Amino acid sequence: MLTGKNYIGNSLSAKGTKMFKTFNPKENIENEQVFYEASTDEINQAVELAHQAFQNFQAIDSAQKSKFLKTIADEILNLGDVLVQLVIQETGLSPERIINERARTLWQLQMFADLLDEGSWVDATIDTAQMDRKPNPKPDLRKMLIPLGLVVVFGASNFPLAYSTAGGDTVSALAAGCPVIVKSHPMHAGVSELVASAIIKAAQKTEMPNGVFSNLNSSGIEVGIQLVKHPLVKAVSFTGSISGGRALFNLANQRPEPIPVFAEMGSINPVILLPLALKNKSREIAKTYAQSITLGSGQFCTNPGLILGIKSESLKTFAQHLSDEILSVEPSCMLNPVIADNFETNKEKMIQQENISTVVSFEKNVDKNYGRPLVLTVDGTTFLKNPQLHQEVFGPFSMLVQCESIDELETIISQLEGQLTGTLMAEEEELLKYVNLVQALQNRVGRLIFNGVPTGVEVCPAMQHGGPYPASTDSRFTAVGIHSIKRWLRPFSYQNWPNNLLPKALQNENPLKINRLVNNVFIK
Amino acid sequence: MLTGKNYIGNSLSAKGTKMFKTFNPKENIENEQVFYEASTDEINQAVELAHQAFQNFQAIDSAQKSKFLKTIADEILNLGDVLVQLVIQETGLSPERIINERARTLWQLQMFADLLDEGSWVDATIDTAQMDRKPNPKPDLRKMLIPLGLVVVFGASNFPLAYSTAGGDTVSALAAGCPVIVKSHPMHAGVSELVASAIIKAAQKTEMPNGVFSNLNSSGIEVGIQLVKHPLVKAVSFTGSISGGRALFNLANQRPEPIPVFAEMGSINPVILLPLALKNKSREIAKTYAQSITLGSGQFCTNPGLILGIKSESLKTFAQHLSDEILSVEPSCMLNPVIADNFETNKEKMIQQENISTVVSFEKNVDKNYGRPLVLTVDGTTFLKNPQLHQEVFGPFSMLVQCESIDELETIISQLEGQLTGTLMAEEEELLKYVNLVQALQNRVGRLIFNGVPTGVEVCPAMQHGGPYPASTDSRFTAVGIHSIKRWLRPFSYQNWPNNLLPKALQNENPLKINRLVNNVFIK
Repeated sequence: MLTGKNYIGNSLSAKGTKMFKTFNPKENIENEQVFYEASTDEINQAVELAHQAFQNFQAIDSAQKSKFLKTIADEILNLGDVLVQLVIQETGLSPERIINERARTLWQLQMFADLLDEGSWVDATIDTAQMDRKPNPKPDLRKMLIPLGLVVVFGASNFPLAYSTAGGDTVSALAAGCPVIVKSHPMHAGVSELVASAIIKAAQKTEMPNGVFSNLNSSGIEVGIQLVKHPLVKAVSFTGSISGGRALFNLANQRPEPIPVFAEMGSINPVILLPLALKNKSREIAKTYAQSITLGSGQFCTNPGLILGIKSESLKTFAQHLSDEILSVEPSCMLNPVIADNFETNKEKMIQQENISTVVSFEKNVDKNYGRPLVLTVDGTTFLKNPQLHQEVFGPFSMLVQCESIDELETIISQLEGQLTGTLMAEEEELLKYVNLVQALQNRVGRLIFNGVPTGVEVCPAMQHGGPYPASTDSRFTAVGIHSIKRWLRPFSYQNWPNNLLPKALQNENPLKINRLVNNVFIK
Repeated sequence: MLTGKNYIGNSLSAKGTKMFKTFNPKENIENEQVFYEASTDEINQAVELAHQAFQNFQAIDSAQKSKFLKTIADEILNLGDVLVQLVIQETGLSPERIINERARTLWQLQMFADLLDEGSWVDATIDTAQMDRKPNPKPDLRKMLIPLGLVVVFGASNFPLAYSTAGGDTVSALAAGCPVIVKSHPMHAGVSELVASAIIKAAQKTEMPNGVFSNLNSSGIEVGIQLVKHPLVKAVSFTGSISGGRALFNLANQRPEPIPVFAEMGSINPVILLPLALKNKSREIAKTYAQSITLGSGQFCTNPGLILGIKSESLKTFAQHLSDEILSVEPSCMLNPVIADNFETNKEKMIQQENISTVVSFEKNVDKNYGRPLVLTVDGTTFLKNPQLHQEVFGPFSMLVQCESIDELETIISQLEGQLTGTLMAEEEELLKYVNLVQALQNRVGRLIFNGVPTGVEVCPAMQHGGPYPASTDSRFTAVGIHSIKRWLRPFSYQNWPNNLLPKALQNENPLKINRLVNNVFIK
């Protein structure tokens, strides 16, 4: 079934000399399939084909693009259990998790298909002419969103389906009318090839131009660098580490023509335990957080890596309960030996910092590549002084910071790096009592959660997934939900254009029956 | 009236040792007033004050912010003829132009005040909870746009009112809820101080927090560099040259925390003369373009610096008419001796390129600092090969490119740098006949004009002012119209937040009666 080759548009290709294999973390062995890294020629071919496809793809109407997305969903489902088994082989994730993630992936495809069918996403804005205006006549102006061009998507290690080949980034870009080249994640190159085959089948069935989608293999950073530097690439999407995301961001901004990079990167997702809530339900909170910290072996970008509270008996009780609960969770397999080894190294680095002590450390023997949870604790003053303690430890890890006072807590929050989420475990009255603290937290995050956990990113229009740097490279966009399409679109105006030659979204008659802003009034 | 000092919030300050004067280009003499460049201490003070003001400014309701903007308009108008005279003194612009530009500035203030009063600009998006959803309950999520923080605005040389101290950038940022520090343009530091005094008066009258606005003097690039590098600055706006804009963009992206820079930079605004239209109305087009090229001494970002046509008798006729018309226009004063001298130098550089000949050169004697129009011509092949010919010559200048064929014309268009505008002088049928050419042009520009001129940027919701690089640093935003506010906003989600503690825009009852997307349906 697998070939190990690259998809250059609709064709399989393996002209490169560099080969690599993926790894089965559960069985701790290499998988058999050999993959061929894309060569410079193949990269250029894919880019040029995508660039040619852009003109035709732009011109295809929304209904047909929507059919394309729905057919991708069908074809992914048609891969059946073969896909699920391959994801297990390449990531060690549980079948339940994979089936959930596949459902999310299909839902995202359907969501963008629906967006295209509805049509208002182009933000049509019309100002009609006033020929008799003094001193100058007012021209007719009509604006809508149009695609940027070729988007390069980097597959994410921790979401082999929902944030990789046919994941949110790819689907939002295709819906926008942008061709996509996926640089597949080396750890799940097989899954990427399989999903790419589904996308290519769907593209052919719905008569999309060849080159609207390509999937390139890579074993390291070279393929990604060449793609980001290529003058015909117009935007980049990345989910992963701060160092990786920042490197791509720098590269893109150093080009003669800089291009937007949306990188969703590190976050430690602070959780604030306010005194009254902690007093009233320390056991319940501890249980909830033991689960959130260890969920999926802590390999989520919204993992709660930082818990902040005020020194008190309740906080001691919370720490004790958290310890008990975490020891009762069965450790699970991490995505890859590299990630598992990094986890061990990073934990060790944290333990060796000054004034650190351990809340709980899972010490029982586990299989190779399984993540043993660790929660450390430190006082607020030390945390404030030592930026090393603010680093993300990717895996089932959290740092409990014990502050002297609400003032110290507020100081820490206001000096935190940007975050995807911030959570307040609080009684409602405490949100009012500590309003400055809440506002300080709001200024550091993209999403504020009341009495919940940051893990579990709901895919819906009101979700914001992104935040002040380094949570993402541009806090003005989201990576999740329908509005993630805005990353790949630019406003474009027609002045005095003949009505019959305008795109349908802008014609007088509103043939698409979409919401529009006409002479500054919203009408349908 | 003028003091030459900086406004650090509500206080005048002159602690620096560096002093400078502005210049009267019409009289070719220095103006008397001495200005004090902001010192490093003053820069830091202004930034810290603005940062403190941010928390309070965010919390002020829209109605009060709207009143602030309207009061700024009133206070600018109250400056009366003193302001108009000072603009003349510092820029050499005509009284008519200044009064028009002031009207535009007031209109922009009113437009954003109206936007705040209406309220839907926050893009409120609500997804209500489904507690019984399987396998997991769906949380309640509510998203709206919130301000980024402190915005630094660089005053533009060519719009002393509408794109400087209280211009579009400042007003859109204040409307967004962001404090603003203006780095005034050294050529009209006096105008900036006067307008700043109006803003400060308005801020005090409407009880805005001290620091919501500051105005800093600068004689060179140092003040701007310090501002862009300051960690508490969260976004930057600039209108000017490619080299200036790119330098700020690079600086902002090299910060530990990169911040968005919206720089609206160079553009030569290609105008395509399609054969039939040229045949039918070459004289009329020549007359229109002679006016557009020389308007305001060519000192507009949308000046038509490039005219493309197919070699023909009609094109010869057009060139002849253009020459006659341009010789009949009275040259006008340029903004500054520096700009006037650069204009002469850049014209000379162009003339010395290979295969260049002159369509028309205004040779009569003019006063010092007056711009003498020049139109050159070149064949398509030479133009394609020599990127020097694609450079903007800021002033009353245009390059007429004579192509061999439609194919060559299309090749040139598709290889052009990004542009603010593209114009088609065409019969309607030609838009259909040359559909590929039209699409190629669309992919290079932010606004497409049919049978008009690019100068005269209408301030309205459907205007796009920005375009692919280097027209602007991020084509996904506009510098003109209500949507320019999006440059300073980021989406923010509340999860399971108590209804009574949400911002009004997101409360169940929709107390602001704004348009919202609720469970994926637009309702009011």
